[in-house]
Amino acid sequence: MKELLNKNDEASRPIGVFDSGVGGLTVVKELNRLLPNEKIIYFGDTGRVPYGNKSKETIIHYSLQVAYFLMKKKIKMLVVACNTASSVSLPTLKRHFHIPIIGVIEPGARSAIETTLKNKIGVIGTLGTVRSNAYKKALKKIKGNVNVFQDPCPLFVHLAEDGWNKNKIAKMVADEYLKPLKDKNIDTLILGCTHYPLLKDVIQKSVGNKVVLIDSGKETAKEVKRILEKKRLANNHKMTEKNHSVFYVSDFPHKFKEVSQRFLSKELKHVHKVIL
Amino acid sequence: MKELLNKNDEASRPIGVFDSGVGGLTVVKELNRLLPNEKIIYFGDTGRVPYGNKSKETIIHYSLQVAYFLMKKKIKMLVVACNTASSVSLPTLKRHFHIPIIGVIEPGARSAIETTLKNKIGVIGTLGTVRSNAYKKALKKIKGNVNVFQDPCPLFVHLAEDGWNKNKIAKMVADEYLKPLKDKNIDTLILGCTHYPLLKDVIQKSVGNKVVLIDSGKETAKEVKRILEKKRLANNHKMTEKNHSVFYVSDFPHKFKEVSQRFLSKELKHVHKVIL
Repeated sequence: MKELLNKNDEASRPIGVFDSGVGGLTVVKELNRLLPNEKIIYFGDTGRVPYGNKSKETIIHYSLQVAYFLMKKKIKMLVVACNTASSVSLPTLKRHFHIPIIGVIEPGARSAIETTLKNKIGVIGTLGTVRSNAYKKALKKIKGNVNVFQDPCPLFVHLAEDGWNKNKIAKMVADEYLKPLKDKNIDTLILGCTHYPLLKDVIQKSVGNKVVLIDSGKETAKEVKRILEKKRLANNHKMTEKNHSVFYVSDFPHKFKEVSQRFLSKELKHVHKVIL
Repeated sequence: MKELLNKNDEASRPIGVFDSGVGGLTVVKELNRLLPNEKIIYFGDTGRVPYGNKSKETIIHYSLQVAYFLMKKKIKMLVVACNTASSVSLPTLKRHFHIPIIGVIEPGARSAIETTLKNKIGVIGTLGTVRSNAYKKALKKIKGNVNVFQDPCPLFVHLAEDGWNKNKIAKMVADEYLKPLKDKNIDTLILGCTHYPLLKDVIQKSVGNKVVLIDSGKETAKEVKRILEKKRLANNHKMTEKNHSVFYVSDFPHKFKEVSQRFLSKELKHVHKVIL
């Protein structure tokens, strides 16, 4: 009985979601849809964004700082909704904290393996993500003989953030970046950066309609649902006004509110600035 | 006599140069040319680059941290070789430290006023620089009736850093950004970001040959020379191997070494990583 009460108490705690900026909101959107009763505490490290051009040591250092902050908010699970941080920080985070922690790499990799028919998968992401080979390793772990072709697309993040995600220039940049992958005849492409779904249309046009795009963020939300249910940590009580999700950023709460509309298609109420 | 000795001692101290990343090296290159006897201590905040998309408070916070670090190295003068930091942090830095401190805004503004014939000046820079109106204020302070037209060009930094500074896409991005300024019939354009000189060719093509481009970094180096001479702080002793310039970064010393070749056309010997 006592154990059940503890479980209930634990289940009512929030899920922590962390990203270097706004990109992780694509994961939040999917979490809201799949798990409408869950309260989310989000941290966007907008004061140090982007992570993609930083070194491994620096990304781990920043990730630990953010995770400590979220742990103090008594989260029941941590979602690293940033491909770069997932690529390099996950093992360290798992060693430090003893709640379920997942990143976006494994769910994206698993879905890609399930999708590919030709056994040829492309991966695009920031420099940090591609250099880490995290997707390649995760894909090879599931299926040793899969062919993986990677390509960093550093400009995509900035095109997405500046709202240049559908114009002629975006298409040209996409053509330039994606040509090598197209030439390899991939049939599945992992969008290995939470910003890239905003450029989905031009990416799809560049690689052609036969290539299936994998949105790692979406796959991650599904995985969060599976884990919470398996561990009996899902919240079954309807969410009320009182336990609304809260958003923290390390800079520019107003800009975050503004941009988040594009990601979540709704207005955020509680965005707070904190210095870590 | 004692005063003269003190002056000599002071003159032998290094010049501190600070930027959010590698861009400030365009100022270093010009300082090396104009003041070959001066030792430089450079700090590139590559662990938190770029500053252009951060808020005023965050930029001031970061600038103070870097300035304290450089002060401990006993610099005789501080050059804020970053347009964004110059735009927002200069008054605070001047209040905190009592050595000569200059940014890149005023030298760039002065040169533009000297150059324009039609009294129509364009300014391009990061979002942070443009939003601060620092160039506009500096230009109006020198000449009240000057017409100033500003435009943020956030993608330029990333094009420059990724080496996409001369291709067709760079030209298209430049055309898109610069059209409003061209339509205003400017005859002088301030490159209000130390990265932009790397895109000089496409920018010149976009605005046409009749528009004079002002490189704020170059103008700043000239101003440093004037100040050091006026204050009798210039070093008259030939630089030896022993007192070589030193470069500090908050991340990626190797990448900094690599990229710096493009900026300085020579290999850097001493690049150290420090965490502030």
